[in-house]
Amino acid sequence: MIRCGIIGYGFLGRRLAKHLTGYRERGLKLTLLANSKGYLHVEDGLDIEGLMEEISTHPGFRASHPMEAIENGLADLLIVLTPTNVYNGEPGLTYIREALGRGIDVVTADKGPLVIAFRELTSLARSMGASLCYEATVGGGIPVFSLARHSLRGDRILSIRGILNGTTNYILTRMHFEGLTLDLALQEAQMMGLAERDPGLDLGGIDSACKVVILANALLGLDKKLEDVKVKGITQVTPDAILAAKELGMTIKLVGSVGDGKLSVAPRLVRLNHPLCVHGTLNAIQFKMEVMGDLTLIGRGAGESTVSALLSDIEWIISQRTSPREGH
Amino acid sequence: MIRCGIIGYGFLGRRLAKHLTGYRERGLKLTLLANSKGYLHVEDGLDIEGLMEEISTHPGFRASHPMEAIENGLADLLIVLTPTNVYNGEPGLTYIREALGRGIDVVTADKGPLVIAFRELTSLARSMGASLCYEATVGGGIPVFSLARHSLRGDRILSIRGILNGTTNYILTRMHFEGLTLDLALQEAQMMGLAERDPGLDLGGIDSACKVVILANALLGLDKKLEDVKVKGITQVTPDAILAAKELGMTIKLVGSVGDGKLSVAPRLVRLNHPLCVHGTLNAIQFKMEVMGDLTLIGRGAGESTVSALLSDIEWIISQRTSPREGH
Repeated sequence: MIRCGIIGYGFLGRRLAKHLTGYRERGLKLTLLANSKGYLHVEDGLDIEGLMEEISTHPGFRASHPMEAIENGLADLLIVLTPTNVYNGEPGLTYIREALGRGIDVVTADKGPLVIAFRELTSLARSMGASLCYEATVGGGIPVFSLARHSLRGDRILSIRGILNGTTNYILTRMHFEGLTLDLALQEAQMMGLAERDPGLDLGGIDSACKVVILANALLGLDKKLEDVKVKGITQVTPDAILAAKELGMTIKLVGSVGDGKLSVAPRLVRLNHPLCVHGTLNAIQFKMEVMGDLTLIGRGAGESTVSALLSDIEWIISQRTSPREGH
Repeated sequence: MIRCGIIGYGFLGRRLAKHLTGYRERGLKLTLLANSKGYLHVEDGLDIEGLMEEISTHPGFRASHPMEAIENGLADLLIVLTPTNVYNGEPGLTYIREALGRGIDVVTADKGPLVIAFRELTSLARSMGASLCYEATVGGGIPVFSLARHSLRGDRILSIRGILNGTTNYILTRMHFEGLTLDLALQEAQMMGLAERDPGLDLGGIDSACKVVILANALLGLDKKLEDVKVKGITQVTPDAILAAKELGMTIKLVGSVGDGKLSVAPRLVRLNHPLCVHGTLNAIQFKMEVMGDLTLIGRGAGESTVSALLSDIEWIISQRTSPREGH
């Protein structure tokens, strides 16, 4: 029985925990929940129904540093859902490093640690015989890493580009179809809960750049950092520029790309008929393949679909840990 | 060393054979090529460079029924590229049945056998411990079965719909953008080699219906035949109907779908902004997932991309036959 822990128990963690209640018969039980204040551990498995609220009010809650739970080996699989810090990767980086160093499998939705230390963490995982999975970090509703790992093996990825940030895509979509200014579209997105109160990382292209770094390192074998990405956000995009594009059957989208060793994020003209041209909060990722040609995937970027990405990674780890050979 | 044979050695077979020359170090050699007139067998592996033309002129060619090669166990993996007969599945069905019955792995691009005998063949494969792979039968450049097998496991497919036939999509695209009549667009497609001289199976929706049957059986666990699909082709679609759709920001596409146990193919109104709305010869397949939401894949439907589908299946079989546990 795989003992699973969630570190960073917020909105996403609660949604995930609910799904994991059905996993006991699949050989996985949830034994650990941790947040920045401490952790809750029940070796026989937690009863999730009573834990959808704040865990620190639970009688079994221990107000100690969550690292203690990792050091004491209270989980075989750690789901790291810490808030993203793109500049130092913390606190997720330390948790992931510690867990992998003990041979504990890790599934994460936190981009920070991967942007800061991709090669270090993947090498550590390999040397310890542990898995490090991060499907949820790029295009939550698009199984991009799983697809590449399993389904593109007979071919070669030449380049990747995509619309990787739902907030900016929502804003650009509203500007295109309704003629809104960027400020107005942003206010609307904030009211709908689609943009953070401080939307700088989204609008400035940094969130997209992080995803480009992860794609480049994971799928093209590169060793890139955030500073290797040429980044331009959407703050200079005007309604006039979008109108001019529209008259040519095009629009402006924030496109992240990696190819020929070069990484970039910038507003680009995209044909309205192009497969990559998705609207609203949708994400799209296009692979240019040597034999297959262009393959485009379109899906939700965040929210509930991120849970499916975490579940897909967890399924993979269960299959690796419990059966020696994968079924067809 | 896996001994690989190709049965139905035409255009697609030659393209594939060329790619397989690089597979010897991966543990696969091409030992058998067969067409309707006979077969060529070299146990040490064929030199493909000299075999890009008609194989029957080769000194080693044996003018016997190709079944003889299967019965004599001249391959461990058989690639079946026979022409599709949707009404009786032959000749591919007999070859596949015979091969699987001997525990020989099969990769096929022939829809006929799967439409006629999906459950029989998949059961036979399972009971003999052999693999039956058919990525190339639906959306050549879209790894739909591989994706579903590996990447959608933590979730549940509720329904599937798609633009599954490149010929009709090309015709409808030309009607939409250029205002051509169906007859004119068809003539153009034929001149460009995008439509058969007898385009009835494409235009009548039968080719799409075959793909819907395979998707339904393979991915939704159903047991359906061609006669279970409610089929309407595009022959009644007029320029006026497309113009009327266009004025509403929509177009008409030939959409195949399966959901709630019901299978259909029909011309449908699709919003121009919708992810499924792809143009030219592109194919698109959309999964409605329980947790993930809608996931859409867009890629080439045929041609060189079909080779990548065959290679993906071959890679899978190599991984199953040569390593007990798949790498991450």
